[in-house]
Amino acid sequence: MAQRIGKNVIELSEPPCILSYSSVTGKTEGEGPMGKEFDFCYPDDGIGKANWNEAEAELLFQAVNRTIEKRKLYRSDIDLILAGDLLNQCTASTFGAKDFGVPFAGLFGACSTMAYAMAMAAVMVEGRGFDNVIAATSSHFCSAEKQFRFPLEYGGQRAQTTQRTVTGGAACLIGRGFEPLVIPRVLFGRITDYGVKDAGNMGAAMAPAAARTICDYLTDTGTEPEDYDLILTGDLGSTGTALLYDLLYDQYRIDISPVHEDCGNLIFDPNKQDVHSGGSGCACSGVVVCARIIPQMIKGNLKRVLFVGTGALLSPEVVLQGKSIPCIAHAAELQRR
Amino acid sequence: MAQRIGKNVIELSEPPCILSYSSVTGKTEGEGPMGKEFDFCYPDDGIGKANWNEAEAELLFQAVNRTIEKRKLYRSDIDLILAGDLLNQCTASTFGAKDFGVPFAGLFGACSTMAYAMAMAAVMVEGRGFDNVIAATSSHFCSAEKQFRFPLEYGGQRAQTTQRTVTGGAACLIGRGFEPLVIPRVLFGRITDYGVKDAGNMGAAMAPAAARTICDYLTDTGTEPEDYDLILTGDLGSTGTALLYDLLYDQYRIDISPVHEDCGNLIFDPNKQDVHSGGSGCACSGVVVCARIIPQMIKGNLKRVLFVGTGALLSPEVVLQGKSIPCIAHAAELQRR
Repeated sequence: MAQRIGKNVIELSEPPCILSYSSVTGKTEGEGPMGKEFDFCYPDDGIGKANWNEAEAELLFQAVNRTIEKRKLYRSDIDLILAGDLLNQCTASTFGAKDFGVPFAGLFGACSTMAYAMAMAAVMVEGRGFDNVIAATSSHFCSAEKQFRFPLEYGGQRAQTTQRTVTGGAACLIGRGFEPLVIPRVLFGRITDYGVKDAGNMGAAMAPAAARTICDYLTDTGTEPEDYDLILTGDLGSTGTALLYDLLYDQYRIDISPVHEDCGNLIFDPNKQDVHSGGSGCACSGVVVCARIIPQMIKGNLKRVLFVGTGALLSPEVVLQGKSIPCIAHAAELQRR
Repeated sequence: MAQRIGKNVIELSEPPCILSYSSVTGKTEGEGPMGKEFDFCYPDDGIGKANWNEAEAELLFQAVNRTIEKRKLYRSDIDLILAGDLLNQCTASTFGAKDFGVPFAGLFGACSTMAYAMAMAAVMVEGRGFDNVIAATSSHFCSAEKQFRFPLEYGGQRAQTTQRTVTGGAACLIGRGFEPLVIPRVLFGRITDYGVKDAGNMGAAMAPAAARTICDYLTDTGTEPEDYDLILTGDLGSTGTALLYDLLYDQYRIDISPVHEDCGNLIFDPNKQDVHSGGSGCACSGVVVCARIIPQMIKGNLKRVLFVGTGALLSPEVVLQGKSIPCIAHAAELQRR
């Protein structure tokens, strides 16, 4: 049975397990430092499809399908797919998930989607109504540029604070079992808006939401950063990470830097790949968690990880109307038992 | 504890209650046959805001705020707001919910959002991690026309199969208590795509999803249409309702017509209001349920209602790319105890 600890954290007394997981990416991610860890890297970002939207939907489909196959399940064994992405009307999730023919619940959490979907899946499995729930997400550099900034053909210069949207799909299957990796606690974030209006600086927009969620999580659970082997943020990139450290220290006197990594800093090599402030997009934290963190935890190299997905709930139209970029950070704790 | 019945329905053994609810609308809705039933109708669709997006966000804010106030709660008593809308990146929900400062989970279910959010809220409350969860949604005729069809200034002719997006916001508070109205069973729908590509005929696109969900629900629960005082579909309008009857009878030999109503047919008067095929939009089923169905059930005039929210997971961009409109229908049963 779930119960609240403090004001924010939901503790799951029979914590659901991670039963299976998968990640697929595009070419640039395959050439990066994590290239060998992904299940599959496409040789080009077209993914064999007619347009970027279809390419992104295929990435989501592949991640979900591999997750089901790895567990040797039929599609009909899946009780629910929880998925979301960055595109208008979450179209990659809809088209990527529709052929499975299983119940579908669309989420919107922007780049926080993987942590959000895992948290929601864990709550639903723990409530006993669902046995096998898939948490999935996707993003694509080209579909995101078109949706949020400029079509690639325009050839616009990107600011140094921008991040490169990860081309990839990630999925994990959450259910009951005796597997070593469980989700014992989750937190649903609060919308945090510090008035950042620059759609080219998502790290700055998202850092306050990450700081708030990390502080709330540590306070409610009575833990210190050192109690975790890793505090992993979604995709703040190098700009956002620096701001997160400052905010956490200035506002809350918390120093997470000894145990912190950011998915946006892990996925690309800033010396060899021209990705400006790092990686971003729903798939960024999705593929880092499914390709590196979960496998490392299963091996026993990490025992307790606080995964904080950060999302900029950005609408380009609303930014043009002069409004700010509200952000959110959802958290799922991963623990090896 | 929740448990699955059949392949689709989730039964909640300690069913959560509806503790509070509210609906606000624009001018056209106020002039319609349900005008007197809404909590508040704005005298014009500008809602006193600078643009349509802000107007829609205000409708969501007002519905949520009134729901909290009616129950005499503080904002901080709310554990989670589940909300979604039709706009790109669900921006009305983000801006409408952000000032409450409470945990937020964004959903995407298009016009099915109210049923979807109520179903999700019921599952989360029943799992004991959450005491007070708000399910909310909004839509606005002018923001939807701009997003999905043409800006109003263009003055385009709308086809007779189109529906008028309802300008409104709706919210209900779901929690534990002794209130008379409970949610004993829910169903999360499967994406259903019959290949309809006409963004001006949502009723035709959504009818197959509604038929599938109604058939699945009746089959899994072993019930007949006559066991319900009302089977209420989201917003199929007149075109979609006729197709739903045909589909249900031809494919499944089910006749729901004696106990069926559609929110899209209830909210406007087709003889006096020029709304073509009826009402639509997330707020359509939201305000009908919160202004008429819930109050009628509390009065005892209806005992058992199957509320089936239908959503066209339409991306205008993807329709222009030649793809179809996948649809979904989520269900929440409402019962007076």
